[in-house]
Amino acid sequence: MQTTVTYRKTAETFTAGAKTLPQCYFVSSDIFAEEQTAIFSAKWVCVGHQSQLATAGDYFVREVAGESLIILRDQKGTIRGFYNVCRHRGTRLCENATGHSSAIQCPYHAWTYALDGKLIGAPGMDQVPGFEKTDYSLGGANLALWEGFIFVNLGDEPDPLEEVLAPLNGKFTHWNLPRLRSAKRIEYDVRANWKLIFENYSECYHCPGVHPMLSKVSPFDSAENDLCEGPFLGGFMSIRKGASLTMSGNACALPVGDMTGEDHARVFYYSIFPNMLLSLHPDYVMVHQVWPQSPERTLILCDWFFHPEAFAHADFHPEDAIEFWDMTNKQDWHVCELSQQGIASRAYQPGPYSPRESIPAAWDREYLRHMSLFPERVP
Amino acid sequence: MQTTVTYRKTAETFTAGAKTLPQCYFVSSDIFAEEQTAIFSAKWVCVGHQSQLATAGDYFVREVAGESLIILRDQKGTIRGFYNVCRHRGTRLCENATGHSSAIQCPYHAWTYALDGKLIGAPGMDQVPGFEKTDYSLGGANLALWEGFIFVNLGDEPDPLEEVLAPLNGKFTHWNLPRLRSAKRIEYDVRANWKLIFENYSECYHCPGVHPMLSKVSPFDSAENDLCEGPFLGGFMSIRKGASLTMSGNACALPVGDMTGEDHARVFYYSIFPNMLLSLHPDYVMVHQVWPQSPERTLILCDWFFHPEAFAHADFHPEDAIEFWDMTNKQDWHVCELSQQGIASRAYQPGPYSPRESIPAAWDREYLRHMSLFPERVP
Amino acid sequence: MQTTVTYRKTAETFTAGAKTLPQCYFVSSDIFAEEQTAIFSAKWVCVGHQSQLATAGDYFVREVAGESLIILRDQKGTIRGFYNVCRHRGTRLCENATGHSSAIQCPYHAWTYALDGKLIGAPGMDQVPGFEKTDYSLGGANLALWEGFIFVNLGDEPDPLEEVLAPLNGKFTHWNLPRLRSAKRIEYDVRANWKLIFENYSECYHCPGVHPMLSKVSPFDSAENDLCEGPFLGGFMSIRKGASLTMSGNACALPVGDMTGEDHARVFYYSIFPNMLLSLHPDYVMVHQVWPQSPERTLILCDWFFHPEAFAHADFHPEDAIEFWDMTNKQDWHVCELSQQGIASRAYQPGPYSPRESIPAAWDREYLRHMSLFPERVP
Repeated sequence: MQTTVTYRKTAETFTAGAKTLPQCYFVSSDIFAEEQTAIFSAKWVCVGHQSQLATAGDYFVREVAGESLIILRDQKGTIRGFYNVCRHRGTRLCENATGHSSAIQCPYHAWTYALDGKLIGAPGMDQVPGFEKTDYSLGGANLALWEGFIFVNLGDEPDPLEEVLAPLNGKFTHWNLPRLRSAKRIEYDVRANWKLIFENYSECYHCPGVHPMLSKVSPFDSAENDLCEGPFLGGFMSIRKGASLTMSGNACALPVGDMTGEDHARVFYYSIFPNMLLSLHPDYVMVHQVWPQSPERTLILCDWFFHPEAFAHADFHPEDAIEFWDMTNKQDWHVCELSQQGIASRAYQPGPYSPRESIPAAWDREYLRHMSLFPERVP
Repeated sequence: MQTTVTYRKTAETFTAGAKTLPQCYFVSSDIFAEEQTAIFSAKWVCVGHQSQLATAGDYFVREVAGESLIILRDQKGTIRGFYNVCRHRGTRLCENATGHSSAIQCPYHAWTYALDGKLIGAPGMDQVPGFEKTDYSLGGANLALWEGFIFVNLGDEPDPLEEVLAPLNGKFTHWNLPRLRSAKRIEYDVRANWKLIFENYSECYHCPGVHPMLSKVSPFDSAENDLCEGPFLGGFMSIRKGASLTMSGNACALPVGDMTGEDHARVFYYSIFPNMLLSLHPDYVMVHQVWPQSPERTLILCDWFFHPEAFAHADFHPEDAIEFWDMTNKQDWHVCELSQQGIASRAYQPGPYSPRESIPAAWDREYLRHMSLFPERVP
Repeated sequence: MQTTVTYRKTAETFTAGAKTLPQCYFVSSDIFAEEQTAIFSAKWVCVGHQSQLATAGDYFVREVAGESLIILRDQKGTIRGFYNVCRHRGTRLCENATGHSSAIQCPYHAWTYALDGKLIGAPGMDQVPGFEKTDYSLGGANLALWEGFIFVNLGDEPDPLEEVLAPLNGKFTHWNLPRLRSAKRIEYDVRANWKLIFENYSECYHCPGVHPMLSKVSPFDSAENDLCEGPFLGGFMSIRKGASLTMSGNACALPVGDMTGEDHARVFYYSIFPNMLLSLHPDYVMVHQVWPQSPERTLILCDWFFHPEAFAHADFHPEDAIEFWDMTNKQDWHVCELSQQGIASRAYQPGPYSPRESIPAAWDREYLRHMSLFPERVP
């Protein structure tokens, strides 16, 4: 039974007595396998942004729950997802991470598929009695868009993405997300469990010691959370007057959207269960995709998005933001890696979350709702 | 019970409806373990050629089913195989891949064995009551020769090699195999299941796309198979008039044997279950040894053999053939690796073999005859 | 039930019929796990020497049975051991192998512990009802000193170290061990089971072939053992008149202690179960710590200790001893690695120890006393 989720409850209600997760959740390969099945193969996960596929025939390859997927824009302009597996002898079809092609041809025996997944060429197979090309289309993955971001779902009959994300309707409209373009992607290979990434993202209790530069421009105790329970969690922090989250301290690009009043002095941080972190600044939007690789290892893709018209402006300095967060990201990954190391010890016991760690505690609860419980181990 | 094997059946009979093997055969460590036990520890496997051991005391080391074996020529000229393990404290005896020695001495405590495996020196052990050197000979492996090639068998009482290979009696006589010498060995570390190597070798349906240079000199649709079912499979393909399977397109050495008529314009490809590929060209013989390392990894040793008198001739250009096949081998290994990747997907299903893939289908059937079946998984 | 251990029995009594351990003891991950539990998590193990922690606040980090421990000297001068795990969210506290600090502060959220392990700072936690700092001290490890060496014990209520080592009382007094200082530590990553290290250390039957230089200065057959059964094993070997165990053959430092008569011409070798090798020379003391990493891999820390006043002398040449034993160590690790390889073979069977291998046989017996037996496998 799913616990009823109520939003906008105060953090205090849920925090009382909350402790970190038991060790098994960070080191067990059984639990990792259940996560891959119950979460990453069953929930909508973010795999990119529509701006990555500008024209028909553009594609990129992304691994989801161990499965290589081809994400492409077909001839009609529709974005689609397919398993990267030939129906003949199972060969991996696309080797490159990104590319452009008018059709998908297997490099082994040249079986060829249209961009809608239909088999259109299979040399010599017309001599095989009963063979029908229509029986050998590429396997498809559920795919949908939200605010320009591409989500896939490997489940059989998932709830529609728009229903799942309905609680966020209209919340990000003025950030202009569908039109933004990424100036940079950095991949991070982090030696820590993926949940530590979310727990780290969801509090600034660690900021004074871990992020001295961030703490100067954005007071660590300025967090005000408006999503405090459930799959979407977060709120905003203040930016000091005249400052910006860049190395120079100045804005580095046109505003991303129609910012109003106080939004010019705020940065919004939201986690979107299970694999997306959305960090909205006045002049750029940073998005992390979080991809568990093993209990002790996580791949993180980080994009910096800007207004499409910003790229042509003389005062466009994306590196000013990228460098700032690349530094800050690495500070975070480092403490996550230290936590992974310590949690693996027999001396580890779930420890008490502080009042400033109500969102990590809420994230843990949401996570546990998707997992079979291990009551004898969970305190 | 072994299915009765009949040779020279037409490919069509067996191909109808044949599909590739289920996923488990390419990724399961249980199946890999069964293969190592039921096939590589129980069947005769090719480990080299007698020309590698020219004189008494020459040895080489080869790993079979995880076991390091010393293959040597003893004082009487007999080729023998021994486990590379000292009977005192188990130490690995020979560290080098090849060498020459009048006896085998353990590098740890200097226990010494004659080339026939008998313990002839064990310092101080004469003081141990009841110790008899004759109780501590090296462990031996069954070994036999066929056409100059060395085969070993780790089983207890295997069928004699000459019986096993009887169906091939006389078939290769005019290729002069026992007298040939290798000019070059290349080792390949391939990230694919070993069965994909055999399935790849056994058809030229992939040649137009994968091997453009090979396809120019040897038409991909010229295959005529004479061994179509059982442990020995293959046939010949045509070589275009005046051409040769070399980079230059010219013959690179003396004919290997007493070629007659059409054999000058043919290349013969045979797989000899479970680990040998025999490719007979007019001017050279290429032999692959296929050594599974894990479900996803295979070591391949490839030798290029020439007529022993060819080496002294001015027009001897072995690199012309070696370079040609090294290029072609790598093209094959690459698509095998892509297949391994795709087959590991949950989207993989056994796909339909084409009419040009009757020999891979026959190889799969032969393979399954040696394995316990998994009926609920095999379609 | 523990077998009664009697010291100073003659080697012959115990050697008759002794054979090396069965294969499983060298390759099984189950047995490795039992060793980590029953031996390395339950017995006193040597982790260093008090000279490594000269002043209050000095610390070093050592891994014991997979657990990272902080070994430090507290404000009162007492040496203590703590698990390297924050009580808040489990973060690894000390990252560096060695250091100096007046307190232990977590790099994540700045929880701070005094050098006695007590939590003295936890920002914001005073707002949490019921939170008491005294409930969140660092986890401690049992720690005790013997002859200046630091031992830890991860068990719950271990026998006192002084009782365990009582049989050695007074034996090493004139070597001045508590005052010595290490001039050099070398770490070796050896691809062999840890027991092979002890079996190798405990006999010189291998010296003629493996250590030609050592054999010149210390005759391989000069061993006289005085501890022949139990957890402490060994004796002495002769050094040729006027020679020393150095590259130059000369003494390289002041005598380590108050050497008397024959001790000037002897080197003493003792193994102290389960992880310490103590090699006492007239001019230096070499100590190996043996740390199993997996069934097939062992980390070895080797220190060369000298008289504290030797360091200031003009004729102090520690590299003369270090180079000699580094060479000799590597010769030993190499044959241990060869044994590991051979023992993994199906052809391995326990082999007969020679009369010169009575101490390895005794070490094996001691080892087995701490393990659950596997009677169907042990011959």
